[in-house]
Amino acid sequence: MTQTPKIDRTVTGNYFEDFKVGEEIVHPTPRTVTVGDVSVYTALYSGRFAVQSSDAFAQSIGYPRSPIDDTLVFHFVIGKTVPDVSRNAIANLGYAEFRFLAPVYPGDTIASTSEVIGVKQNSSGKNGTVYVRTTGRNQKGEPVLSFARWVMVVKKNLDLPAPETVIPELDKEISPDTLGKALPPLKLTVYDYALAGSPRRWGDYAVGDKINHVDGQTIEEAEHQMATRLYQNTARVHFNQHRESQERFGRRLVYGGHIISIARSLSFNGLANAFHILGLNGARHAAPSFAGDTIYAWSEVLDKAELPGRSDAGALRLRTFAVKDRDCADFPGVKEDGKLEDGVVLDMDYWVALPR
Amino acid sequence: MTQTPKIDRTVTGNYFEDFKVGEEIVHPTPRTVTVGDVSVYTALYSGRFAVQSSDAFAQSIGYPRSPIDDTLVFHFVIGKTVPDVSRNAIANLGYAEFRFLAPVYPGDTIASTSEVIGVKQNSSGKNGTVYVRTTGRNQKGEPVLSFARWVMVVKKNLDLPAPETVIPELDKEISPDTLGKALPPLKLTVYDYALAGSPRRWGDYAVGDKINHVDGQTIEEAEHQMATRLYQNTARVHFNQHRESQERFGRRLVYGGHIISIARSLSFNGLANAFHILGLNGARHAAPSFAGDTIYAWSEVLDKAELPGRSDAGALRLRTFAVKDRDCADFPGVKEDGKLEDGVVLDMDYWVALPR
Amino acid sequence: MTQTPKIDRTVTGNYFEDFKVGEEIVHPTPRTVTVGDVSVYTALYSGRFAVQSSDAFAQSIGYPRSPIDDTLVFHFVIGKTVPDVSRNAIANLGYAEFRFLAPVYPGDTIASTSEVIGVKQNSSGKNGTVYVRTTGRNQKGEPVLSFARWVMVVKKNLDLPAPETVIPELDKEISPDTLGKALPPLKLTVYDYALAGSPRRWGDYAVGDKINHVDGQTIEEAEHQMATRLYQNTARVHFNQHRESQERFGRRLVYGGHIISIARSLSFNGLANAFHILGLNGARHAAPSFAGDTIYAWSEVLDKAELPGRSDAGALRLRTFAVKDRDCADFPGVKEDGKLEDGVVLDMDYWVALPR
Repeated sequence: MTQTPKIDRTVTGNYFEDFKVGEEIVHPTPRTVTVGDVSVYTALYSGRFAVQSSDAFAQSIGYPRSPIDDTLVFHFVIGKTVPDVSRNAIANLGYAEFRFLAPVYPGDTIASTSEVIGVKQNSSGKNGTVYVRTTGRNQKGEPVLSFARWVMVVKKNLDLPAPETVIPELDKEISPDTLGKALPPLKLTVYDYALAGSPRRWGDYAVGDKINHVDGQTIEEAEHQMATRLYQNTARVHFNQHRESQERFGRRLVYGGHIISIARSLSFNGLANAFHILGLNGARHAAPSFAGDTIYAWSEVLDKAELPGRSDAGALRLRTFAVKDRDCADFPGVKEDGKLEDGVVLDMDYWVALPR
Repeated sequence: MTQTPKIDRTVTGNYFEDFKVGEEIVHPTPRTVTVGDVSVYTALYSGRFAVQSSDAFAQSIGYPRSPIDDTLVFHFVIGKTVPDVSRNAIANLGYAEFRFLAPVYPGDTIASTSEVIGVKQNSSGKNGTVYVRTTGRNQKGEPVLSFARWVMVVKKNLDLPAPETVIPELDKEISPDTLGKALPPLKLTVYDYALAGSPRRWGDYAVGDKINHVDGQTIEEAEHQMATRLYQNTARVHFNQHRESQERFGRRLVYGGHIISIARSLSFNGLANAFHILGLNGARHAAPSFAGDTIYAWSEVLDKAELPGRSDAGALRLRTFAVKDRDCADFPGVKEDGKLEDGVVLDMDYWVALPR
Repeated sequence: MTQTPKIDRTVTGNYFEDFKVGEEIVHPTPRTVTVGDVSVYTALYSGRFAVQSSDAFAQSIGYPRSPIDDTLVFHFVIGKTVPDVSRNAIANLGYAEFRFLAPVYPGDTIASTSEVIGVKQNSSGKNGTVYVRTTGRNQKGEPVLSFARWVMVVKKNLDLPAPETVIPELDKEISPDTLGKALPPLKLTVYDYALAGSPRRWGDYAVGDKINHVDGQTIEEAEHQMATRLYQNTARVHFNQHRESQERFGRRLVYGGHIISIARSLSFNGLANAFHILGLNGARHAAPSFAGDTIYAWSEVLDKAELPGRSDAGALRLRTFAVKDRDCADFPGVKEDGKLEDGVVLDMDYWVALPR
C-alpha cells in the first residue's frame, strides 16, 4: 500500500557505474551570489585583500565593483557537484587545467555542469577513478571557472562489467600563458599600496622566497559547518556527528576547502597585493582537519611569469602549506625523505596575480 | 533619590491578565529583510530549492526575483511577537488558519501585529490559554502571513478574577481551496527540472508515499543562537546558559523554529520541487532539542489537492517528522499505541506547492 | 640562496620606537559596508533598535534608509588600526574626544587613518604610551567617526634612546554641545513609539535612573571569532587557541568590542528609543571575557543635555556596566571602596540620543 518513491539521483549520488564518458551532468541549484555571501565569508575568514573588500578601491583600479573572492567562487562551483560527483567518493585525487575565466560580481548567478571525460575501474573491481571537467557559468552562460578533477568513486553493482578505460589527456601544469582572463586591465597609476597593505609588487618577489603568514586560526564546528552550508556543499562527513561518531575518525571532518580559504586569507600577511588567483595546479589535502585545530600557513615562491600581452600585472606561482597546531616560522613542508612534515594538512600549488 | 523607571511592557512581557479580547498589539521593531539575511540563513540551513537560491531561476518562472524562504518569513513574523505574547508562556499549544498570503522579497520590511481573539483561565487559576491572530505585513501594509496561535501564559496577579472565557472558532484544518495566494503564476514551460534537482512533479507523488530525507545535521550552540538572534526572537531560554544551568534541563533549549528550518531544508532530498509552503495545520514540538543533537527528517504524503483556478501547480499535504540521533530509513513516527517514537522532536502537518 | 623577504609592517606591527609624533598612518584595507554585514551583525547581537532594523522606519523619520549601527562602524574603524597600532600593545588605556560625525549607510566604504599625537616612554624603558587620533572616513572623504586613543606598546630595540615626551591636550569629557552631527533632523510627528518598542522619550529619563537590561547572552567561541573577523580585526589573542593555550589565560580572549556590542544590544530593554550613540567618554574593559561567559548589563543615567540648536532630540549620558555570570537586578557596579564589583567586565561612559 505505502510505497517509497524512487529516490532522486541527487539524493543518493552516482556510483562508479553511473558515469558514462561523454555525459554532461547539469548540477542542481543555481546560486545567486550576493553581498550577503561576501559578509558571511568575511566573518568566516576575514579576508583583507583591498580589491575584494572595497568597492571604492576596486573601482579605482578598473573593476566595476569588488569581485567575489576567487576561493568563494570555487566553493560554489564545486559545492554543486558534490551530490552528483562525489557523494560516494572515497578520495579526491587531483585537479588539472584549473583556471578562473571571468570575474564574478554580487548579483551574478552561478551554475555548474560537469562532463565525464574519463573512467578507469580499479583492479579490485570495487571502485574506480572518474574524471570530470567541471565548468561554472554565470547567468549569461559565460564560464567563470573551469577545471578537470578526478575522484575515486565506489562501485555499487559489482556484477556489472568494467567500462572501457578512458584516461583523458590533461596538462600536467597550467601554463601562465593561458592565465589572466578574469583579471581586467588595471589602472596601476592609482593603485594605492598603502591602502592595499603592502608596497611589494610582483617585481619584489623572487623565486625561492619563503613567506611566513604568521597568524593562526582555530577552527570551530559551527564555523566550518556554516561555511560548508553556505557553499551548499552537502557532503555528509562535515555535518553529522551522530553518523561520524561511528566512523573512522569519530568526528566530523572539516571540508578541505575550508582549509584552503583559511590559508588564502592568512596569506595576506606577506602577499597583500596578490589579490587574484589565476589558476591552480593542485591542492593536496594531506591530512584531515577537525574542530579545535589551529591552522597556520606559509608559502614559497615556485616561479614567476609575465602574463600574456599585459604589463600591468605579473604572475607568481606559489606553493602554500597549511599546517595545524604548529607555528610556521621554520617553514614546515617537505621532509628530506620527500614526505610532508607532520601537521601539514594542505599542500597547494597555484598562480596568483600581482600588480607590476 | 535614585529611582528605577517603570520597565516597558516589551521588557517584562505580558501576563495572562494583561491580554484583553479584541485588543490589537503592535509588535516592536519592524525588520527590513535583505540578501544578507538570505545568506546567513543559507549558512545555517543550506537550503537548495532553486527558486529561493537563484534570481535567474526565479525570474525564469515568473517571480520578479528570488522570494525569501517561507520559513524565514515565519521566523521573522513570530519572532516579533515573543516579547509581547510568549515571554511568559509555559507552552506553545497550537496553530490554525496559517497561510502565506504574499511573497516577500529582499528590501521588503516586515512588521507584525496580533489581535487577542480568546482567553481561558485554567482551573488552577495560575495560568491560562491566550489565543491571538498574528499577521505579518510588508511595508505596503499587505499581509504576507497570517495565523492563529494559542499559548499557555502565566498569571501574575492571582488576586484578579478570571476573565470571561472566549474561545475563538478556528478551522480545524486549512482547506487547500484557500491556499496559493503567495504563489505567482508559474511559467512551467521553462521550469528546468535538472537545475531544480529532480524531475518529480506534483503528479509523481501519491498519498501514502514515505520519503526519507537521508541526511542529518548536528546542531551547535553558536548556530541556533545566531539563527534565533537573526529572527530577533528574544526568548531567554535559547541564549542564557548562566540562567538555564539552574533550570530543568540545565542547558539552553534550541528554538523550535530552528528544527523546522532544518527539517524543511533536509526535505529537499526527495522533494526538490516543493519550493513553496502554502500553509500549515500544525507543528508539534514533541521534545526539546539541544546543541549536539543530530536532526534527521522524513515525510509522509497525507493528501493531494488541486489549487483553485490554476493548472500550473498542485498542493501536497505533508507530515514531516524530525527525529534526533536516529536515521530515518525506517520512518520513525507514530507507535502502535498512538504515541510518538522516541527521538521525534517535531511533528509538522503542512501543505506545499509543486509544479504540475 | 633562499631569502626571506622583509615582512611588511602590517604583518609584524609597529613597536614603540616606530611611532613618530606627527606621522599619519594610512591603515590598510578599506571596507565597503553592506546589508550583508548588517545581517551578520544582527545574527551576532540581535539589535532591535527600529531605526537600524527597518528602512521603512528610518525613512519615515528622515533618514534616506537605515544607517549602520554605530557600534559596527566603530568596530570597522578601530579594526583597521590593529595591525599598525595595537598589534604589539600591552594595554588599551583610554579614549577621548570620541564622536560620531556622519551616518554610514550600506554601500559606503570606510577607511581609517591615525595621526600619532603623543608618545611617552615608560620608566622601565621597555614600553611606552602611544597617543593616536584615529579618523574613519567614507568614500567621499567625509569623517564618520573620530577619536583619540592611547595604548601601551612594547619597545623592541631597547638600545634606542627615549623619544621626547609629547602628551597631547585632550578634553577630559566630551561636551554635549559638540555632539549630534551624525543625527539628521528627525520628523518626530511620525515617530511610531509602538513600533519602536517603548513610549519613553528623552524627557522620561532622569539623572540617577538605573535600568536593568534584564537578559543575558552566553558567548560562544564561533560567535566572537566571527564577529571579530567580520571587523577585519586581526588581534591574535582572539583566534589562536594553539598559541593562547600557552599564555596566561590558557584560552582565547574575547575582543572587548564584542562585549560592547552585546551590552549595547541588551540595552534596548529599557532604552528602546536611544537608537544613536553620539559619542563616548570612555570604555574600560575591567576584566577579560571568554567563551562560556554569560553577559548581562545595566545602565545608569549620569547626565542629561539638550543638543545644540535642535528640539527634536536630546542627549542622555549613560554609564553602562556589562557583568558576567550575574543577573543585574541589583545593579552591580562600583563597590563602596570605589573598586568595581566582581564580574564587571565593561564600564562604559557615553552619550546617546533620544527623541524629545
